[in-house]
Amino acid sequence: MSNRITELFNIKYPIVQAGMVWCSGWRLASAVSNAGGLGIIGAGSMYPAVLRQHIQKCKQATDRPFAVNVPLLYPEVQEIMEIITEEKVSIVFTSAGNPATWTEYLKRNGIIVVHVIANSKFALKAEASGADAIVAEGFEAGGHNGREETTTMCLVPMICARVKIPVIAAGGIGSGRAMLAAMALGADAVQIGSAFAVAEESSAHPDFKHRIISAGEGDTKLRMKKLVPVRLLKNEFADAVAQAEAQGADAEVLVRLLGRARAKLGMFEGDMEQGELEIGQVSAMLKQVRPAEEILNEIWKEFLIEKERVSGLSFK
Amino acid sequence: MSNRITELFNIKYPIVQAGMVWCSGWRLASAVSNAGGLGIIGAGSMYPAVLRQHIQKCKQATDRPFAVNVPLLYPEVQEIMEIITEEKVSIVFTSAGNPATWTEYLKRNGIIVVHVIANSKFALKAEASGADAIVAEGFEAGGHNGREETTTMCLVPMICARVKIPVIAAGGIGSGRAMLAAMALGADAVQIGSAFAVAEESSAHPDFKHRIISAGEGDTKLRMKKLVPVRLLKNEFADAVAQAEAQGADAEVLVRLLGRARAKLGMFEGDMEQGELEIGQVSAMLKQVRPAEEILNEIWKEFLIEKERVSGLSFK
Repeated sequence: MSNRITELFNIKYPIVQAGMVWCSGWRLASAVSNAGGLGIIGAGSMYPAVLRQHIQKCKQATDRPFAVNVPLLYPEVQEIMEIITEEKVSIVFTSAGNPATWTEYLKRNGIIVVHVIANSKFALKAEASGADAIVAEGFEAGGHNGREETTTMCLVPMICARVKIPVIAAGGIGSGRAMLAAMALGADAVQIGSAFAVAEESSAHPDFKHRIISAGEGDTKLRMKKLVPVRLLKNEFADAVAQAEAQGADAEVLVRLLGRARAKLGMFEGDMEQGELEIGQVSAMLKQVRPAEEILNEIWKEFLIEKERVSGLSFK
Repeated sequence: MSNRITELFNIKYPIVQAGMVWCSGWRLASAVSNAGGLGIIGAGSMYPAVLRQHIQKCKQATDRPFAVNVPLLYPEVQEIMEIITEEKVSIVFTSAGNPATWTEYLKRNGIIVVHVIANSKFALKAEASGADAIVAEGFEAGGHNGREETTTMCLVPMICARVKIPVIAAGGIGSGRAMLAAMALGADAVQIGSAFAVAEESSAHPDFKHRIISAGEGDTKLRMKKLVPVRLLKNEFADAVAQAEAQGADAEVLVRLLGRARAKLGMFEGDMEQGELEIGQVSAMLKQVRPAEEILNEIWKEFLIEKERVSGLSFK
């Protein structure tokens, strides 16, 4: 192990599978961890009792480290954090909230804490709060996203220049080439969402996986900017949002349009038109549903090949 | 010379200075070419007679190759192309239009043609039309931009996988690290705009250069999406556009808001509030006004250092 992130997490490859609502339960997380990356259970779409089951099943399915991602804006955060400590989860990724709120509690319980940020302000806050590492997530990432709209190419070197703790790059990374680019930008590891959302072990509905691998350029857009910006795949619901926004819809109208449980409806239950389909821009490059291990191995192999290619570039 | 782009242009470094309205006249273009990159005169903000003077002065100021960038949507394109052939310009970058329209004419006159694109469709069109290379420009780039909003991280590997001609990456590249990332993504060279807009030789107004190096994260946004998307620096004008757009302003309202000659007013004449200030996201990383040669040398030096660092990354 020769990297701050592989050492911090005790994993083989500096590849983290993003915690994703309705995609990353124990099956995906354990598959990625067993393959040598860091799998993450996404608590964002789970009731506390369901999360506990996923953690327990994940422990049965792998001896390797795995993490839980907790969006801090969720109402049951307190209960979720208690379950995490009771179940002795060793790594927690916090997102969508103030990094200071839970870091001390988690650290006191011997848990490694990583916070997801999209700007320098929160990167510095996370570092100051004692977080062990940061995920710097760019505009191209799927799901909820920063207001600055800073892309991975601009965000990662900026964050790396400003914090001392390790930086995990996220957003637009679904191949070995993109992984190498992220490491070139200064990242210590990558967090990969979309490419694992279409893994066989992902709990996403098969129709959603099919839509992802069929997506083309420009098929995802950042919507709901007057609420919380979220990158959505084009469908009837996203078109309705786009149209409302083009006509100047305010937050109230958007809340009404969104209604309840649309992410579940689309991503888990398979309603491809009325559901909310969260996925990254890199979906335009994804072409296959495969086992997570195969996805990870291909990314790693391409990373090594491309590293040799770039090492060999010479200009005199 | 050991790269398709350095060979194509007969330059030392695979670094192209972007043609930029109100920034890149003969002074900047010749400075970059003299430093070993490819300087570009931006015809977009010049009357034909003015362009001719810039080409003539550039030829006097450098023996090295330089190019002219021609936005194909401009009314005087015919006249501009005649001047370019009369003045024996050897390289032309075309943008903002159909690559097929002028490529054959330019090629017949022995001119190397590069077309700027933001999606695969136009990349393939450019290749089919006989263009010698492509600039793939991501969402984070300043000025006019693609409707797909595809970022450099996602766009470059996608384009490299689809065309055989060399690809020059643009958008978010202002440092050696970002240049290395672009090469990791498969690019043969980089096109750098914002970092050269603040060069001493840039014809941008000093107040505009100062605003660029003072810009922070989130200070540029893609606006005017109902007309032609353009990345603008925050000021009173951009705020007025943002407010109008949030209220659902249509193209007609935006045209009226834009009025005439706002880019000149801001970027060249120095009205920092009512002018249209086109610049990239990477402005948040720029901190100094310096000679173009110093900027280029620093990028190149960092590129080589970072290439060594990345080559040395090892995981067992």
